[in-house]
Amino acid sequence: MATSPTTRIALDAMGADRGPRVLIRGAIEAVHERPDIHVYLVGREKLIARMMTRMLKPYGSASHPRLQIIHAADVAGMAEKASSAVKRKDTSVNVAAQMVSEGKADALVSVGNTGAAKAAALFIMGRLKNVKRPALAALFPTADKPTMLMDVGATTDCKPEYLYQFAVMGNAYMKNVMGRPNPRIGVLSIGEEEGKGTELVTKTFDMLRASHMNFIGNAEGRDVMKGTFDVIVCDGFVGNSMLKMTEGTAYLMYTSLAAELKANPVTTMLAYMLKPAFDRFRKKLDWTEFGGAPLLGVNGTCIVGHGSSDHKAVKNAIRAAAEVSRNRVNEHIIAELEAIEKKEKEKAAS
Amino acid sequence: MATSPTTRIALDAMGADRGPRVLIRGAIEAVHERPDIHVYLVGREKLIARMMTRMLKPYGSASHPRLQIIHAADVAGMAEKASSAVKRKDTSVNVAAQMVSEGKADALVSVGNTGAAKAAALFIMGRLKNVKRPALAALFPTADKPTMLMDVGATTDCKPEYLYQFAVMGNAYMKNVMGRPNPRIGVLSIGEEEGKGTELVTKTFDMLRASHMNFIGNAEGRDVMKGTFDVIVCDGFVGNSMLKMTEGTAYLMYTSLAAELKANPVTTMLAYMLKPAFDRFRKKLDWTEFGGAPLLGVNGTCIVGHGSSDHKAVKNAIRAAAEVSRNRVNEHIIAELEAIEKKEKEKAAS
Repeated sequence: MATSPTTRIALDAMGADRGPRVLIRGAIEAVHERPDIHVYLVGREKLIARMMTRMLKPYGSASHPRLQIIHAADVAGMAEKASSAVKRKDTSVNVAAQMVSEGKADALVSVGNTGAAKAAALFIMGRLKNVKRPALAALFPTADKPTMLMDVGATTDCKPEYLYQFAVMGNAYMKNVMGRPNPRIGVLSIGEEEGKGTELVTKTFDMLRASHMNFIGNAEGRDVMKGTFDVIVCDGFVGNSMLKMTEGTAYLMYTSLAAELKANPVTTMLAYMLKPAFDRFRKKLDWTEFGGAPLLGVNGTCIVGHGSSDHKAVKNAIRAAAEVSRNRVNEHIIAELEAIEKKEKEKAAS
Repeated sequence: MATSPTTRIALDAMGADRGPRVLIRGAIEAVHERPDIHVYLVGREKLIARMMTRMLKPYGSASHPRLQIIHAADVAGMAEKASSAVKRKDTSVNVAAQMVSEGKADALVSVGNTGAAKAAALFIMGRLKNVKRPALAALFPTADKPTMLMDVGATTDCKPEYLYQFAVMGNAYMKNVMGRPNPRIGVLSIGEEEGKGTELVTKTFDMLRASHMNFIGNAEGRDVMKGTFDVIVCDGFVGNSMLKMTEGTAYLMYTSLAAELKANPVTTMLAYMLKPAFDRFRKKLDWTEFGGAPLLGVNGTCIVGHGSSDHKAVKNAIRAAAEVSRNRVNEHIIAELEAIEKKEKEKAAS
């Protein structure tokens, strides 16, 4: 093949709750594990260079041919409003998005301010053809394979057409990235029966039922972690609230269990002996294993990770971005939406 | 005092995933634990009488002076539509609601079809004066005291005025039933900062900030289980989805942990030795301890429990109903809403 198989990731190397260290370490591990990944570390050059040189020492070299620093003088604050952050051209996330937009990188990865990352992707990279609204798609663990819930925070106010397009995008993602031949699609409602829910739900239901997709029907909150659907669509307000509620539930359960187990020396010792089992349990339900949420519907690949990501989550986000870019999810989405558009025009004309 | 201190509970004795057995057992335990509770078991007389006689045997008697069966020939199906169930007058839940409406009982308790229970309360008992929409209020465990999230499924489409009234009702509940002197009120949004969220959120924010209540600001999904708010208001679609998502998360975590611990004989034995710690952990996070969700805004006390309730949850729901009825939550709600109404009228006139 004439084209290089290397995927170029533009990593916002400044934004993370734990500072640039986790980002640089994640990038170092990603390029060492995967020979087909090239990472541009976008941010304050001197700072990143100093940290990277030190962190590369155990690998026996001061640099790496597939790790490259791109200078960006400014940083979007973790709590800064997206509308303000997107205007400052020199922020690391905006420079990274610009690289994707100009074809200098294949994908943008950010675990910084989510709003700023969304705004950078949307306003600098732009929307995909025919896409009405973007959607942030989160993968949730189940006893079997993960379920995709979307949108979890990109589009708060939704119309049925948006949710319908979310389903088209999720369908393409699950088929082409996750290898599910015939994704089971659902719309979130507050009852399983047809006709239950808001007007948004019932209208989306009708559109999805009339579609070419494998639409199963209404899904309820508890279905997200059951594994009976591959993609569940909802508006960004509901999805974001569910995502955060789940984080809260998991956190409370982990801390309560830890407190009980550490209540006395005997239980502490017994729990220590069970550590491998507890570790397997945590790993199974560890969302960072999925490596961030793809922002679907933007013109280019964009993966948004959690602000509290550690280096492992950053590495996984980089790998996920490479996966999405390589599987040409966007081309599939464009083709699907064009086919739908065409069909609708034919219908309107006849 | 001239009035009897006994609280009369009309229990829908037919509707429960696990059948009438758990309901009858819950009622038997409630009256034995609490000398001030009287339970009317509403449902098929012969069936309940036969079961109750058998279940009372260990107590050394075939009957109990504070357990009384009220015949209702019909039952609302667990999956039946509320609109259809409410029309059949002889269903156990409708007969129980009728008793409250006629002053023959102080509170309705149902763990059956939630839709049918809501419809019975709303259409037979009616709305409280000045209440625009009812709200189902769920209590969630935190590391400290439980948080109330409302609505979780009574009113799907909400206006700011509804959410504002939910806050007034939740405030009265937390003050008078849960003994919190100055409940911290929040409105669910997808960001902590003021001005974040949908139009519904921002308008509700303004109304609550101008109110006499201890309004803290926007709450996020993860705050529900953090214990930083006493009452968080949201529309019934979001609240119901969050409630069910939490159930799904907890279920997945419990089953995954159990599977890991039972993976081999050694871990099984160690886990068995830790059983008391695991039991304390589960009890701490056990929602059935709170005994169901009060349906606020209806003219009379109504507690709706989970369809999968066991006898302990039923007993706790009966106790909660007695608590709510005795603390005259509805009188406080009426007084609060009247004061608000009056103030608004004065403002409009001036």
